[in-house]
Amino acid sequence: MPMDYRQSGVDIDAGNDTVRRIKSLARGTFTPGVLSEIGSFGGLFKLDRDRYQEPVLVSSADGVGTKLKVAFMTGRHDTVGADLVNHCVNDILVQGAEPLFFLDYLATGRLSPAVAEQVIAGVARACRENGCALIGGETAEMPGFYADGEYDIAGFIVGVVDRPKLIDGHAIVPGDALIGLPSSGLHTNGYSLARRVCFDAAGWQPDTTVPELGTTVGEALLATHRSYLPVVRPLLARGDGAGVLKGLAHITGGGITENLPRILPDGCAAEIDRGAWSVPALFRLLQQHGGIATDEMFRAFNMGIGMIVACATRDADRVIADLARAGEPGATRIGRVISGNRDVTYINTP
Amino acid sequence: MPMDYRQSGVDIDAGNDTVRRIKSLARGTFTPGVLSEIGSFGGLFKLDRDRYQEPVLVSSADGVGTKLKVAFMTGRHDTVGADLVNHCVNDILVQGAEPLFFLDYLATGRLSPAVAEQVIAGVARACRENGCALIGGETAEMPGFYADGEYDIAGFIVGVVDRPKLIDGHAIVPGDALIGLPSSGLHTNGYSLARRVCFDAAGWQPDTTVPELGTTVGEALLATHRSYLPVVRPLLARGDGAGVLKGLAHITGGGITENLPRILPDGCAAEIDRGAWSVPALFRLLQQHGGIATDEMFRAFNMGIGMIVACATRDADRVIADLARAGEPGATRIGRVISGNRDVTYINTP
Repeated sequence: MPMDYRQSGVDIDAGNDTVRRIKSLARGTFTPGVLSEIGSFGGLFKLDRDRYQEPVLVSSADGVGTKLKVAFMTGRHDTVGADLVNHCVNDILVQGAEPLFFLDYLATGRLSPAVAEQVIAGVARACRENGCALIGGETAEMPGFYADGEYDIAGFIVGVVDRPKLIDGHAIVPGDALIGLPSSGLHTNGYSLARRVCFDAAGWQPDTTVPELGTTVGEALLATHRSYLPVVRPLLARGDGAGVLKGLAHITGGGITENLPRILPDGCAAEIDRGAWSVPALFRLLQQHGGIATDEMFRAFNMGIGMIVACATRDADRVIADLARAGEPGATRIGRVISGNRDVTYINTP
Repeated sequence: MPMDYRQSGVDIDAGNDTVRRIKSLARGTFTPGVLSEIGSFGGLFKLDRDRYQEPVLVSSADGVGTKLKVAFMTGRHDTVGADLVNHCVNDILVQGAEPLFFLDYLATGRLSPAVAEQVIAGVARACRENGCALIGGETAEMPGFYADGEYDIAGFIVGVVDRPKLIDGHAIVPGDALIGLPSSGLHTNGYSLARRVCFDAAGWQPDTTVPELGTTVGEALLATHRSYLPVVRPLLARGDGAGVLKGLAHITGGGITENLPRILPDGCAAEIDRGAWSVPALFRLLQQHGGIATDEMFRAFNMGIGMIVACATRDADRVIADLARAGEPGATRIGRVISGNRDVTYINTP
């Protein structure tokens, strides 16, 4: 019995169909730097060398984690791509970088060009919104790796910052203010725990409407990880990068507890006032239905704070006002830098 | 019953242990451009702007596909990382780019810091060999996504080429020579079919020694995807990039049949002489035990040719001699460019 590639579970034609669909989506994201079409071996991006004294490329790789399971449960595949892009954009934004280009990796057991197109449509939409070109990627059909209808995605971003404007937290000192920017939901972390609470402990379904959430559980869990670029970019553009904005922390896996210390220099720690902001309903419900300890909540989830800005106390009001002018009215002081060993202390735990 | 993150299958401590192990492996790959440690939000790489008139960043995303299943079967996890890096290096080399930095994505159901360390050790080794800095990555523990002991990996590379030295195939004309460089095995494609042939049709085990292969099936299938950078770099360094080397095609998924056309300009096609090189034993055994049609073989596998160089006929002997001097004695003419519609015609099929 003669064998071929298709029998072994790999459909090159489906792969080519997918690439064709992706090509036009990607083309819609192209910025003037892009020199290549999707389908060439490498993506080509011309760096405008004269714009930078000392160009520093800032890159990050991320996934969406088990938030994907919520996409599988609801059959909605057009949002996780945006989660991926925005997560990456925020990861380089915290060092002062603006995005240049993005590549994605999509792996599945049996490739559905239609689902792949939805996923990449989400990637492309967020790339356009962030002014970031989608210039390449890999779509892999891997029989036996993923359950039917499931897939994994990873994203890779490259941005640039001129070295004098690089933000790395080195100037942070005890006494500095910590300003929190609201998250749009769970973003992309804590989903393994959140799904257990929602679908096992609370007994909800994705289409269960929960009054406190004002929407269905599925919608609440799929809320897109927001990009902070639109509201932070005006502050960077003014040259506040290395001066006023001393450090930015993206609150991802590990929560405030593990992410805020990543920007603290030796001799510094953070004191966060848990009473300074109102924790959104979704987190309160998760804690209540899961009986989860408060410290565990702050390690597993962002608790309503997706990004933290460190600045001198004298600049705090101005930064909050500038963020409001840029479209983020919800920025608020949530704590301060204290002397210590790069950890987080919480006060006013309700 | 109070819930926590660990019960839901995510072990933040295992994650932190893994990051600690990876950090020192990554540090061993650092080149002078690296400004950051692993663990910062983004990886920082300073581009030496004065080395380039018009720096073009060349990037690629890749996976290893179901070659990973062979790693799982044999318990050998230190080679697939090198496959990943070398695959990426070749994908940007074909456009004349030298690698700058690399990021990896490692996703697993239940994170074993020891296995992750082996995988990343392979990544780091190949990064060092290619002069490419491992400056970031993501390790994701995703319960319910991957079978026990299994994982997926993806890699992202960024390199640079000065625009006048960019290789893109545009100068290829009918009459040009096509030179093949030997592969080191299946590289990273065709594994879903190859595993079915070896383990189902032929009834072999990973530790079965096959005389024609001179080794075990597991070893033969795990042979590392080679990097062509060491043998091609000397030709690029001489400035042959845009002149003598008109086009380079990396023969990956889709084989010669689908990859060679990617560098052909309109009006050109390729004629490949199947009698010009000796197809290695592994491919012959796969064809024989699987009863696979020859055309299917050339679409599923690289058939012993991992990279193809297009150059003017008058330069062919010189390119072959230069490749030999650079350490690749096996380069040989395998065909020519003809007039046509960007496809591949095979002659002398045995």
